[in-house]
Amino acid sequence: MIIAVDAAGGDHYPKNPVLGALAAIKEFERLTILLVGPKKLVQNELSKYSFDQDRIQVVDSPEIVEMTDSASAALKQKPNSSIAKGISMHKQGQCHGFVSAGNTGALLAASMFILGKLEGISRPTIATYYPSLEGFRLIIDAGANLEIKPDMALQFALMGQVYAKEIMGIEQPRVGLLNVGEEEGKGTELLKEIYGALKQIPSFIGNVEGRDILIPKADIFITDGYIGNVVLKLGESLPGILKTLVGQRLQQSKGTPEMMSFVQQILTESLAPFDYERVGGLPFLGVNGTSVVGHGGSSPTAIKNMIKVAMDCVEHSINDKIIASIN
Amino acid sequence: MIIAVDAAGGDHYPKNPVLGALAAIKEFERLTILLVGPKKLVQNELSKYSFDQDRIQVVDSPEIVEMTDSASAALKQKPNSSIAKGISMHKQGQCHGFVSAGNTGALLAASMFILGKLEGISRPTIATYYPSLEGFRLIIDAGANLEIKPDMALQFALMGQVYAKEIMGIEQPRVGLLNVGEEEGKGTELLKEIYGALKQIPSFIGNVEGRDILIPKADIFITDGYIGNVVLKLGESLPGILKTLVGQRLQQSKGTPEMMSFVQQILTESLAPFDYERVGGLPFLGVNGTSVVGHGGSSPTAIKNMIKVAMDCVEHSINDKIIASIN
Repeated sequence: MIIAVDAAGGDHYPKNPVLGALAAIKEFERLTILLVGPKKLVQNELSKYSFDQDRIQVVDSPEIVEMTDSASAALKQKPNSSIAKGISMHKQGQCHGFVSAGNTGALLAASMFILGKLEGISRPTIATYYPSLEGFRLIIDAGANLEIKPDMALQFALMGQVYAKEIMGIEQPRVGLLNVGEEEGKGTELLKEIYGALKQIPSFIGNVEGRDILIPKADIFITDGYIGNVVLKLGESLPGILKTLVGQRLQQSKGTPEMMSFVQQILTESLAPFDYERVGGLPFLGVNGTSVVGHGGSSPTAIKNMIKVAMDCVEHSINDKIIASIN
Repeated sequence: MIIAVDAAGGDHYPKNPVLGALAAIKEFERLTILLVGPKKLVQNELSKYSFDQDRIQVVDSPEIVEMTDSASAALKQKPNSSIAKGISMHKQGQCHGFVSAGNTGALLAASMFILGKLEGISRPTIATYYPSLEGFRLIIDAGANLEIKPDMALQFALMGQVYAKEIMGIEQPRVGLLNVGEEEGKGTELLKEIYGALKQIPSFIGNVEGRDILIPKADIFITDGYIGNVVLKLGESLPGILKTLVGQRLQQSKGTPEMMSFVQQILTESLAPFDYERVGGLPFLGVNGTSVVGHGGSSPTAIKNMIKVAMDCVEHSINDKIIASIN
């Protein structure tokens, strides 16, 4: 298995992609990594560590896509970026997948234009993991499609079910439509039409509400990318906010140092379900390839886990199963 | 000051509205309460307590609006409900405001049809308090308008500013547009148009994201009622979810009983900013009257605080100030 990793993407390149790649070849057998980025920069970082030289190769891509670049500008004006190079190599069969903590919009655009869509798919989607009392669940769409239509929503749900079953090990993934009330007939005309389309899915459980996400009442929450994105970022901000709130209370409390450190330990452990690092990222669903995107702030562990996600998608032939499910 | 209270609304009537009313007359001077509900039911509950009989009157309304009734059906089929009766009395000047923990849709419909809109307002809105590191802030709309337009969004922001300044004591309330990215030009065409409309407001700070809510980066977060409702209910579910997560960790820990109770005390105190009971509810903004709606599960304290909100709105002439701000 050969996975290409964006060594010029995210907030902490080349260090974190390099460390993530090194961790991955240590943990996963039969894996070779292509580190795609400005050659000298990447080699300089790599030279700090000792590793099996046969299993990591550096591929030069001199141009850098900034996190603030617009997707279309990044593609047109920087044809020699790590994203363009990595996705092109994937298209040409030189690697099984590409992993990036870089500019999500640019990666999605490159994936759609260079790799293309899977047969029968109207719009690829970004799904996101969301924490719950029973582990991560999926929210789809998380920002790729700010407006959705009934046929798109149906495909998102079907693709999400393949992913949840194959990669997350959820046997019969329940699909719920995020809405403002539980009863059928709630919401806008569009939401009612989407409800009608989702009814084709045997494990569609109907409308679900914001309070049902963390329980979780469904395994896949279908919504538009505007809501998905707001809810995703709200969730990402939670652990930090809670640690601040608890820290403030502790300062005012009369606990002993031992008790205070016990509180912080329990809190950190309790918030583990909110730790996105454990999964790192998800592939774009509906793209004709394996293109995994993660958070800009991804740690080495997060990047290692994104590489694992890419490997899992390839090993489980996710795209073949999506095509079979849709058509 | 005379405030009418829905004694047949919410999940725990008549008990909680009655207890909330009793707490209110104890705490607030020069306040008379009209308890609106099935007379015998309410009187029976009231008879359990001793109180100043001059300050609480029971107004009979035999019909009950269920929480699951549709708004229009509730209005048409149950003309003698507590909601219809209370709002009608307010329209006729028999009380200064109406407070209910009952069916939000029915209360909004009754408020719009019986009280009407304020001069110049295109659509009344439901705002919601949202917790943050600096106390509650506002999200508008929270479910009354699932689709919004630029002129509506501008009015929501202006009404929110009046409320935040007068009732919440925020001197220069910052307005932010919830979007999928910070830069101007992000989001759908509609979001770009709303951005353009909000630019008229001097303290508009531009686009904000889901991660900015709890900080809080703005004092008033403008969004559509679909997102506002999902985010509102997600936030309401959080304290319970966190207590469960921490409880599970504690059971597996080796802390002493003293340490474990210290954790729970700190957690409860830390989650105080998430406690909606402290405000109880908000008035519909843009309605020609004072109609305060709260959570179905409102406690007596929450209902007492809703009564306080209604009193504050009247005392601060919120509606006059909204009209001056809009026109």
